[in-house]
Amino acid sequence: MPVCVTDIERVPDNIVSLYQGAEVATVHEAQGRKGLLASYMKPIYRPAKIAGPAVTCEVAPGDNWMLHVAVEQCRPGDVLVVAPTSPCEDGYFGDLLATSLKARGVIGLIMDAGVRDIATLTEMGFPVWSKAVFAQGCVKETVGNVNIPVVCAGALINPGDLIVADDDGVVVVRREEAEAVQAKVAQRSANEEAKRVRFEAGELGLDVYNMRPRLAEKGLRYVKTLQDV
Amino acid sequence: MPVCVTDIERVPDNIVSLYQGAEVATVHEAQGRKGLLASYMKPIYRPAKIAGPAVTCEVAPGDNWMLHVAVEQCRPGDVLVVAPTSPCEDGYFGDLLATSLKARGVIGLIMDAGVRDIATLTEMGFPVWSKAVFAQGCVKETVGNVNIPVVCAGALINPGDLIVADDDGVVVVRREEAEAVQAKVAQRSANEEAKRVRFEAGELGLDVYNMRPRLAEKGLRYVKTLQDV
Amino acid sequence: MPVCVTDIERVPDNIVSLYQGAEVATVHEAQGRKGLLASYMKPIYRPAKIAGPAVTCEVAPGDNWMLHVAVEQCRPGDVLVVAPTSPCEDGYFGDLLATSLKARGVIGLIMDAGVRDIATLTEMGFPVWSKAVFAQGCVKETVGNVNIPVVCAGALINPGDLIVADDDGVVVVRREEAEAVQAKVAQRSANEEAKRVRFEAGELGLDVYNMRPRLAEKGLRYVKTLQDV
Amino acid sequence: MPVCVTDIERVPDNIVSLYQGAEVATVHEAQGRKGLLASYMKPIYRPAKIAGPAVTCEVAPGDNWMLHVAVEQCRPGDVLVVAPTSPCEDGYFGDLLATSLKARGVIGLIMDAGVRDIATLTEMGFPVWSKAVFAQGCVKETVGNVNIPVVCAGALINPGDLIVADDDGVVVVRREEAEAVQAKVAQRSANEEAKRVRFEAGELGLDVYNMRPRLAEKGLRYVKTLQDV
Amino acid sequence: MPVCVTDIERVPDNIVSLYQGAEVATVHEAQGRKGLLASYMKPIYRPAKIAGPAVTCEVAPGDNWMLHVAVEQCRPGDVLVVAPTSPCEDGYFGDLLATSLKARGVIGLIMDAGVRDIATLTEMGFPVWSKAVFAQGCVKETVGNVNIPVVCAGALINPGDLIVADDDGVVVVRREEAEAVQAKVAQRSANEEAKRVRFEAGELGLDVYNMRPRLAEKGLRYVKTLQDV
Amino acid sequence: MPVCVTDIERVPDNIVSLYQGAEVATVHEAQGRKGLLASYMKPIYRPAKIAGPAVTCEVAPGDNWMLHVAVEQCRPGDVLVVAPTSPCEDGYFGDLLATSLKARGVIGLIMDAGVRDIATLTEMGFPVWSKAVFAQGCVKETVGNVNIPVVCAGALINPGDLIVADDDGVVVVRREEAEAVQAKVAQRSANEEAKRVRFEAGELGLDVYNMRPRLAEKGLRYVKTLQDV
Repeated sequence: MPVCVTDIERVPDNIVSLYQGAEVATVHEAQGRKGLLASYMKPIYRPAKIAGPAVTCEVAPGDNWMLHVAVEQCRPGDVLVVAPTSPCEDGYFGDLLATSLKARGVIGLIMDAGVRDIATLTEMGFPVWSKAVFAQGCVKETVGNVNIPVVCAGALINPGDLIVADDDGVVVVRREEAEAVQAKVAQRSANEEAKRVRFEAGELGLDVYNMRPRLAEKGLRYVKTLQDV
Repeated sequence: MPVCVTDIERVPDNIVSLYQGAEVATVHEAQGRKGLLASYMKPIYRPAKIAGPAVTCEVAPGDNWMLHVAVEQCRPGDVLVVAPTSPCEDGYFGDLLATSLKARGVIGLIMDAGVRDIATLTEMGFPVWSKAVFAQGCVKETVGNVNIPVVCAGALINPGDLIVADDDGVVVVRREEAEAVQAKVAQRSANEEAKRVRFEAGELGLDVYNMRPRLAEKGLRYVKTLQDV
Repeated sequence: MPVCVTDIERVPDNIVSLYQGAEVATVHEAQGRKGLLASYMKPIYRPAKIAGPAVTCEVAPGDNWMLHVAVEQCRPGDVLVVAPTSPCEDGYFGDLLATSLKARGVIGLIMDAGVRDIATLTEMGFPVWSKAVFAQGCVKETVGNVNIPVVCAGALINPGDLIVADDDGVVVVRREEAEAVQAKVAQRSANEEAKRVRFEAGELGLDVYNMRPRLAEKGLRYVKTLQDV
Repeated sequence: MPVCVTDIERVPDNIVSLYQGAEVATVHEAQGRKGLLASYMKPIYRPAKIAGPAVTCEVAPGDNWMLHVAVEQCRPGDVLVVAPTSPCEDGYFGDLLATSLKARGVIGLIMDAGVRDIATLTEMGFPVWSKAVFAQGCVKETVGNVNIPVVCAGALINPGDLIVADDDGVVVVRREEAEAVQAKVAQRSANEEAKRVRFEAGELGLDVYNMRPRLAEKGLRYVKTLQDV
Repeated sequence: MPVCVTDIERVPDNIVSLYQGAEVATVHEAQGRKGLLASYMKPIYRPAKIAGPAVTCEVAPGDNWMLHVAVEQCRPGDVLVVAPTSPCEDGYFGDLLATSLKARGVIGLIMDAGVRDIATLTEMGFPVWSKAVFAQGCVKETVGNVNIPVVCAGALINPGDLIVADDDGVVVVRREEAEAVQAKVAQRSANEEAKRVRFEAGELGLDVYNMRPRLAEKGLRYVKTLQDV
Repeated sequence: MPVCVTDIERVPDNIVSLYQGAEVATVHEAQGRKGLLASYMKPIYRPAKIAGPAVTCEVAPGDNWMLHVAVEQCRPGDVLVVAPTSPCEDGYFGDLLATSLKARGVIGLIMDAGVRDIATLTEMGFPVWSKAVFAQGCVKETVGNVNIPVVCAGALINPGDLIVADDDGVVVVRREEAEAVQAKVAQRSANEEAKRVRFEAGELGLDVYNMRPRLAEKGLRYVKTLQDV
């Protein structure tokens, strides 16, 4: 039953390259507020920012055997995404696996469990987003799956989907939607830049977004003191 | 029903200025161990330290509309305090709102919910204490209240009260007690400084605080080994 | 009933010195995956790394009186280990106690509760691993025990046991096992170093650990696409 | 500094009696969605339902001394409300204190901490809403305050305010607003009853609340299959 | 963008009927240990057991408007599955909605958020599995989606998939796999029944499963006392 | 390295029998407030109450193989105590293992992890105290230890120690202290009974425990209103 899928379709390089520098919050908004991983996914050091296609790995709790199978499926630019079949905070990943991934050109790890050796990972500059930091090691007894769809930190991730991660967290963009979403990200970023200039100049959001009439309609009252209510 | 109170009384500037450099732990002790916000309120970067009067903002879960109403009520030196009406970790606040607040001279944000764009907020040097970091954005559909008393992270905060925040967390001082508390803070700081000199010289707390007689009275026994018990 | 044990046997200095630089994850593996404290124990700043014998202190919730008793029992090189009798996140420890411990040559604190003044502790370079950061102070009303066995963050710690702590967390090594464990730590570190060279050269864990036959035996199938399953 | 206030003004009996049978969810809605305690407050047995004026008690963590002071301030029909000054799950309250409260006619306990002896409390039919069940006992060393305003489970409660609690949780109604809120509760309950009849008859909320036009306006599309999007 | 899909394909009635009485744990094992929702999903009363096709509903945090849209899509025997787009514990569902669902023949609710009126729901015998019980109500301002694939409590659920829920939790079975899985469930149940007889007769699992040789191979040693190690 | 210790010394039957009916809270107090397991340990049904000697079992996360080894070491009257080597909520235990334990006369289970089949366990009347209820099953790949000292839910438990569990939680009494503690439990229960009579008669704890002078000494002030402070 356990499988390792070898020929996955990845989001194309030229689209990935357009996401370099994109912010997770902007991508999330641009694709209609979906695809965000749970807020407990934290980078082990800051600042950190990556974008690349997902290689997915499903593991048993406390068992990191399949990570070695997954490493072989990774190409330069990939992001390894690991999801346990039940919640676990054990340290699935440390400096040796990071050395191996780095040697293959992998740019980062998304781990819905624990990692360890974070001092060395930080020195190596290998970015990891994880649920926990925990020195507790794993066994290698149970096989799982590589490159099947997984639910990781509450989000569905298919192999080849685009992962974008920064200090705010992690978002997934469907492979087949990545191009369309990128256009909206670019538009949104430009729009935000224009707004930033106005905010810096002291304009209020109430005016920039023309909120006053709708607030009045909803019944917001301005009073001098609470006694006036 | 929703209101925005415009003429709040703030803790006076001359008193606020006496709190610059004051530590949250010292303020909390000085006012008789009260006013502390929950320990889950964390600064997005360290070190960070602020003191200023509160502008309060009550919001619906997942809805940051009222923040724009609150911004207009802020003056230079203010601290914006945001409390959702039920627990929420969504990202209510990002770099655009920070730009707007900074343009008005606001010195920091206390958010009993999530924030995002923390890489940019860190670069901007705009300090935020929050319950969570989460890229999940908000809608703008429900009106709330500005400058009413709120319970934020377990503490009652009135508009105009003094907020002091540092790497240890956040404490609120009642506007009308701020002057009296400050005198105790100063006394306590001086007292601590004197003690620090004695501790550095190797004196023991047992002697500095004359604890030995009371410990004996309470029945503490010194034994060479556990077998002696 | 409350006792302070004065003549504890410590893991010898010459053994402690062999642990300088040892990693928590490696020590944990080397002693057969035991002795790890819970993953919620975090250093207040990073990087941080210590190794030394434990002086143990059992305290009532919200009451830090016994810390002063414990300080007197500490010698240069010791690590103070504090465990409350029921879960508590109050700030048991701040800069004055740190000053006192530092004056006695204590190298760090393991606190299964909260600490405060972390900005100053960071400046002082006094490392602390704790469950929480919380400005909430303590009373001094209830006596506890010093240098008895305690359960701290889920691990049994006897006075004189060896504590090793780094960015990954905290591990305890039994005093009487510390020498034998150290031999395994050294062997393991050398072994890891050799593996790192192979991983850097691009070898796969599948080959370095000869995993392929056993994976096949367990039924792992390689397929081109999920449709092939 | 610690005080016990003896002459508090309670919400009048005739108003309290109108709240018998009122549901927490309805009261919360009726007063404009405020006053709810945190969702972690659970009844120790179900079903349970009370309404009565609050006697408030502020305690140190792990210290239940002040409960005995508070008992003396209670009258028949009162609800005792206990809030620790920092989070604590210790068992502040057991069958002896329940016996004492029951003897005075107190109708229930709201405890933002732990309780114990719940088997006996259940047999006695003394309802308790608490944050935790924990056999860990308390000391009696630190004095606190009785009948001052407290923040309990995230809600501000003044002595004499009305507490309503049922299987859904706990809500507080300001003493001075209790009469006006009750009118809205009654109206709301009648309104809900009328709606229930329509729902039982198979009418849809979409029609009962006339939601279809506004949903269309917001852009909701009905499609046969996802492929139609 | 928001859609309501009206013509979903449901797992057929004759297959659903074969799952009546099936246990969640058995179903989960039978389909290869997948499809389980997070352990925080609890029934509001016990015992409770249902099996039926899912109608899915995606909602904004604190906003239950779409539930009314979803109700109209439900048929007798359906299970309504609700997932918020970010974590929320508000009370999305109470007795009026339950009355409406019951009138349409819906057999239960799976809510990855809070519910309220649980005393009435219990009296009505309408089973609910939820993340929380919380009286906090919702607004009706933001439209979401009905009958799209959702991630609910960590599991991917498509409209029409089979939901099985009991006192242990909730599991989802893909519509297209429901028949094949049911065969394995039946086989597994029979197998367990046979084992139960042997266990009742005092046989050991060590023998029933023939574990002794493999335990020996893995190095398990039997010793009289720990001193023998 | 993994061992199963076969000849453990149990707390004698005649002492165990004296604990029948003893309450966890009373035992905990009687032995000087120690030995309590964490408050997250909950009975799967209420009321439930047991007392018996511990057979201990240390397991890997997500792996319940060793439970079968432990069953063989159990005698009538024993309590099986299971502790994972790192935190885990998987369902280690269900109705088949319960049938096996019951056939051997085991009176209950203490599981610092998850259990499943709780509907059946409840029907069987087999009491379990656990950290979680979760249908997620386990693998059988990794050997652990039986009848070694374990830390279970934060408490050290040696094989043969006495376990007492009821609706309030779980407490462990050292085998060699069980007799002495029992005497104190009996004394304490009698004492509580006497006090209950006085409380029922309306006497106050303030008088029963003669607290008034010490409260005055600590500075407690009685005031009519807060304005009097």
